[in-house]
Amino acid sequence: MDWRCLKGDGVRFFELLKDDVIFLFAIGNTKTAEIPGITVAGANPNLIKFTPPADVELLYYGECKVIPFPPATPDGKPTPAVITYTALRLTNVPFFVVDSGLIVKPNVPYVSIDAPVGENIEVKPAMNIEDVERAFKNAVEFGKQISKLADVLMIGESIPAGTTTALAILRALGIKTMVSSSMPSNPVEIKEKVVAKAMERIEGNENPLELIAKVGDPVMIGVCGIAIGSKKPVILAGGTQMVAMSHLIKMMKDTDIAIATTVYVANDSDALNYAPCPVVIADPGLANSVKPGLRAYAEGFVKEGVGAGGATLLAYARGFSKEEFLKEIEKSYETVIESKL
Amino acid sequence: MDWRCLKGDGVRFFELLKDDVIFLFAIGNTKTAEIPGITVAGANPNLIKFTPPADVELLYYGECKVIPFPPATPDGKPTPAVITYTALRLTNVPFFVVDSGLIVKPNVPYVSIDAPVGENIEVKPAMNIEDVERAFKNAVEFGKQISKLADVLMIGESIPAGTTTALAILRALGIKTMVSSSMPSNPVEIKEKVVAKAMERIEGNENPLELIAKVGDPVMIGVCGIAIGSKKPVILAGGTQMVAMSHLIKMMKDTDIAIATTVYVANDSDALNYAPCPVVIADPGLANSVKPGLRAYAEGFVKEGVGAGGATLLAYARGFSKEEFLKEIEKSYETVIESKL
Repeated sequence: MDWRCLKGDGVRFFELLKDDVIFLFAIGNTKTAEIPGITVAGANPNLIKFTPPADVELLYYGECKVIPFPPATPDGKPTPAVITYTALRLTNVPFFVVDSGLIVKPNVPYVSIDAPVGENIEVKPAMNIEDVERAFKNAVEFGKQISKLADVLMIGESIPAGTTTALAILRALGIKTMVSSSMPSNPVEIKEKVVAKAMERIEGNENPLELIAKVGDPVMIGVCGIAIGSKKPVILAGGTQMVAMSHLIKMMKDTDIAIATTVYVANDSDALNYAPCPVVIADPGLANSVKPGLRAYAEGFVKEGVGAGGATLLAYARGFSKEEFLKEIEKSYETVIESKL
Repeated sequence: MDWRCLKGDGVRFFELLKDDVIFLFAIGNTKTAEIPGITVAGANPNLIKFTPPADVELLYYGECKVIPFPPATPDGKPTPAVITYTALRLTNVPFFVVDSGLIVKPNVPYVSIDAPVGENIEVKPAMNIEDVERAFKNAVEFGKQISKLADVLMIGESIPAGTTTALAILRALGIKTMVSSSMPSNPVEIKEKVVAKAMERIEGNENPLELIAKVGDPVMIGVCGIAIGSKKPVILAGGTQMVAMSHLIKMMKDTDIAIATTVYVANDSDALNYAPCPVVIADPGLANSVKPGLRAYAEGFVKEGVGAGGATLLAYARGFSKEEFLKEIEKSYETVIESKL
C-alpha cells in the first residue's frame, strides 16, 4: 500500500491535498533532549540544539548552514527532512517555518510567535504560563491569517525529545499508551522515569495551556495555536507527538483536524489509535530503497519527523507513485546527505 | 477623484487588487530618527522606537500593546495605520508583518528576516554589508514562498525617518528631488545636512545592497528583497520612500512593480515623478472628515505610512465608495484613537 486510513475518514483530507496546501513547520527545543540516551535526533549531544534549524535550512536550500553537514547518524541514517524536502521539491507547495521555541535560529525566513525554549520537564515546569499564553495568542493570530490562503494547512514539527513531552501530556490526560521513538529500542525506561517526575506537577484540573506549561514543550504552542486559529481543515503531520497535540486541540475547540504520519510510526506504537481524529498513514517505501541509510527507517530508526509522513501523503495526492517518490527521495539523499558524509 | 494614475499604467494594478491580495508590512528602525526635529512619527523622541511595533499591533487588534496608546500627536493626529486598519477590517485581506530591523518587537506574529537595526546615517554607515546580504537573502526566500499564494503582493512600511534615508538613496543615484515629510513644513535643512554627511561615504560604484548598507535603512532590505523574490506583481504601498526602493529594485531585476500612495504625498513632493514604474494615487477623502485629527492629513500632516495609500486603493478596488470608506475610517478613529486620548 502507499497510504491508508488507520482510523476515521482520512480520505477527505487526502482529497484536500489536491487543492491549495500550505505546509508549516513548527520547530523548537526542549532541554529534556539533554537527558542522555533520550533521543537520536542529533548524532552528538552538543549538536541536538542545531537539529531543528538545520532541518528547515535543508528544506529551503538542500543543505544546512548552522552546521556544516545535515542531521544524520555517522553511518548515514538521515533526518526525515530529506523526505519532506523531496515532496516540497516535487510539488512546489508553499511552506513557512515557525520558530516555536528555538535555541538556535535558522538561516531562513521564519515566523516568530515569541515562544520560549522548553525546560527539562524532569526537573522543572516546561515554561511559564504567561509565556505560553502570549505565544499561543500569536500562533492563533498567525493561524487565522495564513489559513485564509489555503484549503488545508499541513503542520509538521521538529523538536528533539518531543515524544517524551508528548508522553507526559498523554499521561496527564490519563491515556495509557507508549509513544514512538527515533530508535529501534525505545528508551522506555528513561521516558517513564522523566514523565513520572513531571507528573508530580500535575494536579488534574489543568487546562490545555497549563498542561503544556507544566509538562509539555514549546512546539505544542505553535501547532495547537495555529490549528485553533485556522479557519480551514488542518493536517497534523507527525506521529505520536501529534496524538498528544490533537487531544489538546480538541479540548480547546471542536476543530477539523486529522493526523498524517508514516507507516513506521504505526508499526512502532499503538498511540495512534488513541487519536481523537482521523489518522492516515503513508508509506514512502524506504524498505525497498537501495540506500541502507534510508532502509534503516523500515528497520526502526528515525521513523518520522519534519512532517515526513504528511509530505509523503502530499506527494501521493499530487500524483506521484510510490516508486517515483522513492526514486526522488534517493536522488535527494545523494545530493543532500551522501555528498556531505 | 477617489484614485488616479499619476504615471504609467496603474489601472492593471488596480484591477489586480480585485483578485487574491496579500498585504505585507516591512517595519523597522533607523537611528537617524533620533536626530532632533527630523520626524513627527512618534510624538515624543523616546517613543519613536515604539511607533513601528505599535502600528502593526493596531492593525491586528485595534489597539497597541508596546505602548498604552496609539501613535498620535497629543492633539489627535493619528498614525496612518488607522486608515490601513480600516481597509483590512473591511476587506479581510490576509496580512503579515515582517521584522525588517526593529528595536522593539511587536506583540503579534511576525516574519523574521534577521535584519539589523539601522544606524544614524549622518554619523556612520547604516549597516554592515554582510548583515544586509544575509537579511536580503531571507527576504527574497520569503518573497518566493508568499507570492505563490497571491495574484499580487502589496508591501507597506513603517520606519520613522524613512524619508531621510530614502533621500540619501535618491541622491546617491543622482536623482535631484526632495522627499515628502510627515510635517507641513518639511525639515529640509536637517534632511539635507544629514544626507550631505551620508553622501561622503558614496564612491559612485556601489551596487544596490551596498547603497542600502552605506546610506539606507533596514526596511529597504525587506521591501526590496520580497519584491525581488516575488513571482507575482508587487505594489509598493508608500510615498517617496517607495520611489527610492523602486529604483533599487529595478537596478537588481526587471520586476513588475508599481507604487500606490496617497494624494497627500503627491501634493507635497515631485519625487513620485521620478519613479521608474507606474504610480497610482488614492484619496481617502480626509479633507472632508468631521474629525480635525483626520483633516490634518489634508493640511500637510503625516500624509502616508503603514501602506495607507495602497490600503485606500484596495478598499476602492473592493467596491467601497470614497464616502463609505471615510465613514469607516472615522469609526476606526473613534474606537482606536479618540477612546485612548
